[in-house]
Amino acid sequence: MASLKKYRVDSKFKLAQVSPGDTPFLEGNEAAQVAEIDALAAELDEMQDLLHAEGRRKLLLVLQGMDTSGKDGTVRWVFSRTSPLGVRVTAFKAPSDDERAHDYLWRCHAVVPRTGEIAVWNRSHYEDVLVPVVEGWIDKAEAKRRYAQINDFERLLVETGTVVVKCMLHIDKDEQRERLQARIDTPGKQWKFSMGDLEVRTKWNAYQEAYDKALRATSTDHAPWYAIPANHKRHRNLMIAQLLMKTLRQMKLKAPPADPALKGMIIK
Amino acid sequence: MASLKKYRVDSKFKLAQVSPGDTPFLEGNEAAQVAEIDALAAELDEMQDLLHAEGRRKLLLVLQGMDTSGKDGTVRWVFSRTSPLGVRVTAFKAPSDDERAHDYLWRCHAVVPRTGEIAVWNRSHYEDVLVPVVEGWIDKAEAKRRYAQINDFERLLVETGTVVVKCMLHIDKDEQRERLQARIDTPGKQWKFSMGDLEVRTKWNAYQEAYDKALRATSTDHAPWYAIPANHKRHRNLMIAQLLMKTLRQMKLKAPPADPALKGMIIK
Repeated sequence: MASLKKYRVDSKFKLAQVSPGDTPFLEGNEAAQVAEIDALAAELDEMQDLLHAEGRRKLLLVLQGMDTSGKDGTVRWVFSRTSPLGVRVTAFKAPSDDERAHDYLWRCHAVVPRTGEIAVWNRSHYEDVLVPVVEGWIDKAEAKRRYAQINDFERLLVETGTVVVKCMLHIDKDEQRERLQARIDTPGKQWKFSMGDLEVRTKWNAYQEAYDKALRATSTDHAPWYAIPANHKRHRNLMIAQLLMKTLRQMKLKAPPADPALKGMIIK
Repeated sequence: MASLKKYRVDSKFKLAQVSPGDTPFLEGNEAAQVAEIDALAAELDEMQDLLHAEGRRKLLLVLQGMDTSGKDGTVRWVFSRTSPLGVRVTAFKAPSDDERAHDYLWRCHAVVPRTGEIAVWNRSHYEDVLVPVVEGWIDKAEAKRRYAQINDFERLLVETGTVVVKCMLHIDKDEQRERLQARIDTPGKQWKFSMGDLEVRTKWNAYQEAYDKALRATSTDHAPWYAIPANHKRHRNLMIAQLLMKTLRQMKLKAPPADPALKGMIIK
């Protein structure tokens, strides 16, 4: 297996240093890769069962990335074998009036994973330091304050039993063009396209820069960021599945021991 | 395909008229049945995509049944091919203090499906007319009032775009004994067992009677109940998957038409 460490965001990180088209985690032919993802997905399902059986900890997977970077696809393939009972996905949209009337972490806190659960956030609280920075709604001092607030919030989660994994799905602008074009050209996919996506696309460089700053400021020991080369969809799935498996294995999950009181008990 | 109609609860229904060991929806050998469930699960996934693409309606699946009747297993197998993005499962437990401080439909209303979503309730608001009736916490008049409140609540959901499907997973007392015993005897499954299950088991007949009354009173045209023979797990999965597919087909879901404004558009 390739090294995940290389893709872990540190204090000098820039997205430009990772090539979106790289495929370090792909091995063998397509059939072998598909089989590997499926095997990992099955193992993830077993791990989630153990997480639930243990009943003490939680896992939060944060997925960020530009439009079409494959956040939905990641959820579909990485959790293809996990029962929906154990995985709760929240897709964060532009905040509603009610959400705007609260602090920006309020709606996130409401959907953190419960004991035994894996929660996946398709977009997240990070939108609130990316969009406002790019749009110029907040200044540098406020952005810095938010990075610190986010680090504090994530530390709370970690200190109360949540393991936090954060992935930036890194595609390049050409790949996005192809994916948007495919949405326009495929009749059954057109509903996925929104003119707003083009508006955001014109600010590509500003977003890359905002990501660089946010990722550097919030890739902590307790909740690190990983940059996932994501032009190649199978690579993206495989790398994220391996990252999750590695994380879950490190948790050394164990089902509770047998209860001696139940030994030999016969139900009538 | 066997007739679903026969299992639809009407005003004279009694659980005793349905044999939990029946398998009317099973055809062919085990391999064929597994393949059929898998094909239905794949079709369900496509239908959920369409539900999302259409963006107007929602589906709510309510699962009720005695302990070990297979509510979790149903979710796992029937939605084995659906992305967790499109299915949201809520397992209702004994109400918390905060939930108890509200009316009993409050916590349910909070998790009804959103547009394009399938919500599955593992237990539901029906617990609040089953447990209190069996325990004698409410009298007949109050039970009747709750049946009416539930019918009104479900009518609201239906009139605002939700299709409601309700399944009673019907097992017999012997089958439950075997399943509970297996939990006790299998080291990795023991954590699923709770002494409270045995307490409820002693009230088996009272629960069957409470179910009879509740199902009859709340099997409406807008939100009918189906009694699912559920001793045989594959039969249970197959019957519920077929019921859902039939329901979704009747919805005549359609992706929105192509937008003429996008025709020939080239992205830069």
